[in-house]
Amino acid sequence: MSDNHYWLLPEGISEALPGAAAKLEALRRQLLDLYRSWGYQLVMPPLVEFMESLATGTGKQLDIQTFKLTDQASGRLMGVRADITPQVARIDAHRMRVEHPNRLCYMGPVLRTRSNHSTGGSRSPLQIGAELFGHAGLDSDVEVISLAIETLQHCLFDANRKQTDTIILDLGHVGIFTEVTKALGLDSADQAYLSDMLQRKSIPDIEAWISEKSFTAEQIAILQVLPELNGSIDVITQAEESLGVQVTQIQPILRNIRALVERLQGVFPNLTINLDFGELRGYAYHTGIVFQLYLPGVQRELIRGGRYDGIGEAFGHARPATGFSADLRLLSSLSNTSETRANDTKRIMAPAEADTALDSVIRELRTQGHVVIRHLQQGSDTGNSTPEVLGCTFQLVKRGNNWLVKALASDDQD
Amino acid sequence: MSDNHYWLLPEGISEALPGAAAKLEALRRQLLDLYRSWGYQLVMPPLVEFMESLATGTGKQLDIQTFKLTDQASGRLMGVRADITPQVARIDAHRMRVEHPNRLCYMGPVLRTRSNHSTGGSRSPLQIGAELFGHAGLDSDVEVISLAIETLQHCLFDANRKQTDTIILDLGHVGIFTEVTKALGLDSADQAYLSDMLQRKSIPDIEAWISEKSFTAEQIAILQVLPELNGSIDVITQAEESLGVQVTQIQPILRNIRALVERLQGVFPNLTINLDFGELRGYAYHTGIVFQLYLPGVQRELIRGGRYDGIGEAFGHARPATGFSADLRLLSSLSNTSETRANDTKRIMAPAEADTALDSVIRELRTQGHVVIRHLQQGSDTGNSTPEVLGCTFQLVKRGNNWLVKALASDDQD
Repeated sequence: MSDNHYWLLPEGISEALPGAAAKLEALRRQLLDLYRSWGYQLVMPPLVEFMESLATGTGKQLDIQTFKLTDQASGRLMGVRADITPQVARIDAHRMRVEHPNRLCYMGPVLRTRSNHSTGGSRSPLQIGAELFGHAGLDSDVEVISLAIETLQHCLFDANRKQTDTIILDLGHVGIFTEVTKALGLDSADQAYLSDMLQRKSIPDIEAWISEKSFTAEQIAILQVLPELNGSIDVITQAEESLGVQVTQIQPILRNIRALVERLQGVFPNLTINLDFGELRGYAYHTGIVFQLYLPGVQRELIRGGRYDGIGEAFGHARPATGFSADLRLLSSLSNTSETRANDTKRIMAPAEADTALDSVIRELRTQGHVVIRHLQQGSDTGNSTPEVLGCTFQLVKRGNNWLVKALASDDQD
Repeated sequence: MSDNHYWLLPEGISEALPGAAAKLEALRRQLLDLYRSWGYQLVMPPLVEFMESLATGTGKQLDIQTFKLTDQASGRLMGVRADITPQVARIDAHRMRVEHPNRLCYMGPVLRTRSNHSTGGSRSPLQIGAELFGHAGLDSDVEVISLAIETLQHCLFDANRKQTDTIILDLGHVGIFTEVTKALGLDSADQAYLSDMLQRKSIPDIEAWISEKSFTAEQIAILQVLPELNGSIDVITQAEESLGVQVTQIQPILRNIRALVERLQGVFPNLTINLDFGELRGYAYHTGIVFQLYLPGVQRELIRGGRYDGIGEAFGHARPATGFSADLRLLSSLSNTSETRANDTKRIMAPAEADTALDSVIRELRTQGHVVIRHLQQGSDTGNSTPEVLGCTFQLVKRGNNWLVKALASDDQD
């Protein structure tokens, strides 16, 4: 066992043993069924694509996160997908090419070069998500955020935790930062620097940076108010009254956010809504409303999503788009329940003997959903394989000419 | 559209659009449920591992098929899995470390550097399989081959094709070639050369090679009979009477194969069984019984498996092992049926309006398994989104204070 370390998995890479895997599989099925009931059709994009295709419209951040492979068949560079959302956008824009609203969902492993603290250090999340293409506006934003909330609610169902009232929605909008920096005339280097400081909510850094630059008093007022625009929904009014007066372009965005908040409050009265107009971290290709779902006491965001109207155009078919994604492993960890199975499912030990009648009984029991484990006699076991060791609480025994299912009673010789 | 070719997928890489994906998902669930009912527990090994771990015990062939990645976190070489079976063997031997027989199953994408004609040219099969660890002998061989046959039967169920009588089982045993070459005293270069000629069933090449070497008349007789040992189950008797007299070490192997054939004929009376004692192609780590399942008129093998007792030892815990795997995409292509759903599932269009009573009705319908698609009004569509275009045959309409599900009748104004 001295070479034990050889078989350690790489940092941020994990695997699921039977208990955890059964729980993941059950949640996977429940969520895909939920998405299906909302009209979201499952697609299965490939594990790898050519880099030209994977990187289109997704920005530099995703490129850095993508493992590259040389395709021996073509000599071209391929990437292992680091995010499934852009693949689904390609499928909508290029493969399906419908004109009407198109609802798609997916579930599969992704791979990233670096671990991300916001995803709990995983470099290979099991990404699950839903995307809605072909509609720009309030109704599709409401639908996608509602489905994300129902996803999280579903994971809390079995855990006896209260539901909606514990879910926290963080709402932002990429357009506010974009319009403000445009109004200020910032170049891309300054935009990136300001964005970084806003993400760290570092007021002293912003103050120092302002003092180095030659901004007008009006510009300085805008820059000083920006990092303060986060908190409860009163922030919308605050933004309208401060920023909106000087940067009038953000007024329609703020009206849009207010309408969205009101609609969501109508559907989910117990939802806690926070706004953050400075937060842009990790949005590689988003263009409008962005959101994250949290639970109290859980540091990491559990679901993230938003609007990304830009990608379809790169694939030759401009389409508005909005959606969300999550790590199934993270969602699965929220629930205390194991695999959801009918309570009357039995785990039954069957003898090894070759007997046609026994074969039929076993086949019938398995069809009914019971687990039947056949004893292995001819040959050699490496260990004790009693029914108890194999987790069976029933066994098949012969009474006369019939095979019967009997409970394994340790002190009862029935 | 001139840059259309940009978005082509690499050779041997495919993706599933809604119809195909729903079919794959349905089959995935049915097969994992089948394996569960036989006592096989689901595990989810990782997409990548360090090469030391992935390549252990698997042989050179799998190494060539594995895409390598440099792990930025450790500087070590990782591989994208080209086969899940060795990963599951590691989980049994290293992670679970039970002594009793351990039944595990899995399902997930793999990636290979080269396309393989026997898998229909795919470089990224959706590998599904089942493995049984901790028992060496007839009973575990029978169980694993039976489960493989039931897997294939299951895929034929819905297609109105006859079942068992159309399935062809090709059986071989790695030990026969090994014992014969050992008895002949062949070095590893000659073994590889002979193996290649046997796979090609090239009698002239074998004759030419024999004439170059200085074999005894007895050795030549052995070499000449080897390529003929394939066909119906009479081959067992033929091998016993020819090869078995001179290479007595293969007698217990032949007795084992005969017992296996008789057991399988008992359980599956309509199964066609072929034997091939020269065939070793593509078995990277197998040590005993090997098998493939075919259907008449389908060139490619549909399921392959066998015994590989060697791997566990490399992970510090020697365990007998046998199992099988298949490409879910290939299995899915056998069946004519689409997604299996209850016949009374409706696809219902719901209006966009924000209405609490409507929300409740929609939630209830979705919980019952119906698909409810909400119309998107506020904002702008990129296309026509009538119920018909979205595939709905029902709609929710308000009658008085109630929301009712009504059929969409094109010429009937109900």
